[in-house]
Amino acid sequence: MEQRLSMVSLGVQSLERASKFYRQMGFTEAGISDEHIIFYQLNGVALALYPRDKLAEDAQVSAEGGGFSGITLAYNVRDRAEADRILAEAEAAGGTVVKPAQDVFWGGYSGYFADPDGHLWEVCWNPFFPIAEDGSIIVPESME
Amino acid sequence: MEQRLSMVSLGVQSLERASKFYRQMGFTEAGISDEHIIFYQLNGVALALYPRDKLAEDAQVSAEGGGFSGITLAYNVRDRAEADRILAEAEAAGGTVVKPAQDVFWGGYSGYFADPDGHLWEVCWNPFFPIAEDGSIIVPESME
Repeated sequence: MEQRLSMVSLGVQSLERASKFYRQMGFTEAGISDEHIIFYQLNGVALALYPRDKLAEDAQVSAEGGGFSGITLAYNVRDRAEADRILAEAEAAGGTVVKPAQDVFWGGYSGYFADPDGHLWEVCWNPFFPIAEDGSIIVPESME
Repeated sequence: MEQRLSMVSLGVQSLERASKFYRQMGFTEAGISDEHIIFYQLNGVALALYPRDKLAEDAQVSAEGGGFSGITLAYNVRDRAEADRILAEAEAAGGTVVKPAQDVFWGGYSGYFADPDGHLWEVCWNPFFPIAEDGSIIVPESME
């Protein structure tokens, strides 16, 4: 495999509810979206919203499951205030703040919100990981 | 929020087992990785491997949970043969093919593997979503 990711698909209970949330958070649906699936163009990666049972069916696995998914997404911000602001916006849009932003042991400032389906997004100010002009993340070689 | 993603974090039982799998799949760890967390630089996005219980703790949620996570990752390939090859490689590296690649209703060719922790990766030939030179995905405006 080349070292890359093409898409993240989030299983949702209601496409309408989920897409309303992401729209309020500032995301614009790609034109290819329809009543069955919604796509967003992110920085070189696609995000999809798809009914949870159909996502499991696509992978030919049982849709049974719950609790902690074991996967989190992160959105890095350029300063601490932006982290607080985005968490407040997520709550206003119908998400849940599961961890208010706070200083964390490794030197950043981070909180989490859950989208209406419980998918966890970390909103994170990480002074060690530069954010490029286009929003891409640069993983450094050392914590300096 | 700007329309972007910074990182995907996968909760794992064993950093050693998980990183061995991704190494065999062709991923190189970033220098900042240590015995507590492993990072990969993907196309403008970071991938992290982190112990599952610590990931839950970071989000201040219970680590309880299992079954279908409700999230899948996708790796788009440039032709059908590449999909078959990567699924075979995933199996050889200690993953599980949960769906052999096959023609799918929307016109692509797709299968799934699970990494050693059960995280689902779709390996997908999607003729409608161009792959840029740098591996980035371009979400089209229509299915044409």
